[in-house]
Amino acid sequence: MANLKTVFVTGGTGYIGSHCIIDLLNEGYEVITIDNLTNSRSGALRRVQEITGKSVTFYECDLLDGRAVHAIFAKHKIDYVIHFAAMKAVGESMQFPLIYYKNNVIGTINLIEAMKANSVYQMVFSSSCTVYGDPEHLPITEDHPTGAVTNVYGRTKYLIEEMLKDLSHAEEKWNIIALRYFNPVGAHPSGRLGEDPTKNFTNLMPYIGQVAIGKKPSLTIFGCDYDTPDGTGVRDYIHVMDLASGHVSALSKLDEEHLRFKPLNLGLGHGLSVLEFIKEFERVSKVHIPYEYSGRRVGDVATLVCDGTRGVKELKWKPTRDFQVMYIQPRYRPGSFCVATSEGFRGRD
Amino acid sequence: MANLKTVFVTGGTGYIGSHCIIDLLNEGYEVITIDNLTNSRSGALRRVQEITGKSVTFYECDLLDGRAVHAIFAKHKIDYVIHFAAMKAVGESMQFPLIYYKNNVIGTINLIEAMKANSVYQMVFSSSCTVYGDPEHLPITEDHPTGAVTNVYGRTKYLIEEMLKDLSHAEEKWNIIALRYFNPVGAHPSGRLGEDPTKNFTNLMPYIGQVAIGKKPSLTIFGCDYDTPDGTGVRDYIHVMDLASGHVSALSKLDEEHLRFKPLNLGLGHGLSVLEFIKEFERVSKVHIPYEYSGRRVGDVATLVCDGTRGVKELKWKPTRDFQVMYIQPRYRPGSFCVATSEGFRGRD
Repeated sequence: MANLKTVFVTGGTGYIGSHCIIDLLNEGYEVITIDNLTNSRSGALRRVQEITGKSVTFYECDLLDGRAVHAIFAKHKIDYVIHFAAMKAVGESMQFPLIYYKNNVIGTINLIEAMKANSVYQMVFSSSCTVYGDPEHLPITEDHPTGAVTNVYGRTKYLIEEMLKDLSHAEEKWNIIALRYFNPVGAHPSGRLGEDPTKNFTNLMPYIGQVAIGKKPSLTIFGCDYDTPDGTGVRDYIHVMDLASGHVSALSKLDEEHLRFKPLNLGLGHGLSVLEFIKEFERVSKVHIPYEYSGRRVGDVATLVCDGTRGVKELKWKPTRDFQVMYIQPRYRPGSFCVATSEGFRGRD
Repeated sequence: MANLKTVFVTGGTGYIGSHCIIDLLNEGYEVITIDNLTNSRSGALRRVQEITGKSVTFYECDLLDGRAVHAIFAKHKIDYVIHFAAMKAVGESMQFPLIYYKNNVIGTINLIEAMKANSVYQMVFSSSCTVYGDPEHLPITEDHPTGAVTNVYGRTKYLIEEMLKDLSHAEEKWNIIALRYFNPVGAHPSGRLGEDPTKNFTNLMPYIGQVAIGKKPSLTIFGCDYDTPDGTGVRDYIHVMDLASGHVSALSKLDEEHLRFKPLNLGLGHGLSVLEFIKEFERVSKVHIPYEYSGRRVGDVATLVCDGTRGVKELKWKPTRDFQVMYIQPRYRPGSFCVATSEGFRGRD
C-alpha cells in the first residue's frame, strides 16, 4: 500500500542511496532522486526498479546547480529529504579540499534553500562517524565531542551538522536527524546491487572484492602499527541494508516527534580489525586474499566503534545482518562471493 | 613612490576595509576593491580618495556572483588579496544562520576559486577573536584552541580558517595570514571616515556615538552578571588605523616568508569593560552617556583579551593609538568627539 508520501533523495545512484531507495519503495514511499553521476551510474536505479517492481523519478542534477534543484522542488510535492549526496574519499579530500568544501557544503546550502523555499523541513542527513575525530572514549556515544576531525571529508560532515544545528535553533520548523554511519559494507540480497564506485576503490570491502576476483593482485593495508590488538585499524561494519532500514525508520521518527536536530549513530557496536576482516572473508569465501602493508593514511584513526544504543531505541530499529552476509550474497552457495565491478557484478561459485 | 603591486580588497567600503585602503594607497599599492554595499556605502571610497589624493578601482560586486569575481580577476593583474567582506553581526547570525553560512563561506570559496584560476596565492584573511569561543585561558595566544565558538558568525570565521588551512596543506603555493582581530574601534584621524554601518549598530562604539549625539536615548548593556570585575563584558579594543597598518605589514610579511597558513592576533593585550569604556568616553568627551542593563546576548562571552606578542614580532608592527584617540578625532579639540551617522559625520566641539 502506498503511504502517499514523497521522499526527495540526493545521491540516489550511490551506494547507500540506491540501497535505501529499495526500502523506501518497498515501504510505499514515492521517490524522487537526483545524482550528478560523478561517482556512480544511473544503472543502479534500473536495478532498483527491477528489484522492487516500482519506479523512481530520476534527474541527473548537481546540487551545485541551485536553480535546477529549485525547479525540481517546485515541480514536485515533497514531504521529506534524505541527503546522501557528498564526496566521501578521505585521501582525496586532503588533496583537493576546495572541491570537497564546495561540493559538500555549498551543495547542502543549495538544498536547504530549496527546501525552505518550498516549506520542506523534514530531513535525514547522511553524516559519519568521522565527525568524532580520533575518539576520546570507546564505544563512541552521540555525546562524544565532535569537530576535532582528522580529515577534510570529516570536516565537511561536521560543518554541515553544525550548520543544520544552527538552522534548527534559529527556525523551529526544522526537524532533522543526522545519521552518523560507521562503516557500511555489503550489498542487496538479490546480488544485483552493491557498492559500485566509478572512481577509487578506497573502502576496504570493494578493495577486497577486487582482489578476490583477481582484478587487483593484492590488498594494501594502510598502517600496521596502530594501537589495536593486531596493529591494523578497527572499524564498526554495518550492513548497507540495515542502514537503509535505519533511514526508513528515521522518516517515521520525524513524523512522531519534533526533534529539531538529533544526531544518531548507526553501527553494530563492535569492531573488526582489517586482518580480522580479511580472515573472515577468506573463511567464508574460501578465497585467499594476499595483502601487503603500507604506511598509515593521513586522516585515519586507530579505532572507531559506536555505542548504538540510542539509535536502536529512538528509531525502534535494529541491525539484523551479521558479518557473514555482509559480502556473501544469498543467491550464491556458501563458500562463494559476489562483488561489484565496473563491468557489473562478478562472483565465484 | 608606487610599489607597483596590486591588492584586491573585498569589502572595501566597509569599516575596516576602507581604513585599510587608505594605508595601502599611502604605501603606494594599487587597490582594486569590491563590495556588495549591503552594510556600507560607496561614499566611503570617495572619502578615501579625497583623504589620500589617490584613486581606487571599485566594482559593486557580490562574492556570491562567482562569474563577476572571475571577470574582475581576469581583467586585472592582482598580487595580493585582502579578504574583509563578511556579514558580522553576532545576534543576526544566530537568527539567520543560513544567510551567514552562504555569504561568508560560499563567498570565500568563490574568491579562492578566482584566485586559483588566476594564480594568485597571497592572502590576508580578516578573521576574528570569536574563533576562540569562550576562552580557556587569558590572555589568548594564537595556540589557544579554536572551534568551540559561541555563535554562528564565529563559526563561519572558524570554518573559513580551517578551509584555508586545509587548502595550504594540500597546495603549497598558498601563503595566507589570518588576522584575528579583537575589537576594532575608532576612525581615521581626518575625522572624515569612520564606522558607518547602514544596518544595526550592534558594536559598542557606534552605539555610544549614537547616544552621545542624541540619536538614541540610552545605551543598552547586554549582561551585567559576567564573571568580570564590574559584571560587564571585557574586550580588547584596537584602533582601526592600527589594524590597517597591521594589514600593510602582513603584505610585506607574505613577501618575506612562505608561511602557508599563519594566524596572528591583532589587539592591544589589555581589556576594558563596557562600564570602563563608557567612563572613559564620558571623561574625554564630557558627554554623559545614560545606559540601561539588559540580559546577556546569546553568543557573547565574558572576556576577550589577546596576547598580541606574536603579531607584533612577526609583522614588525605595533599598535600606537591609545584609548583616547579611539573616538576623539584630532581635528576636534580635547573634550569633543566625532562619530559616524547615517547622514555623515557629526561631532560636538
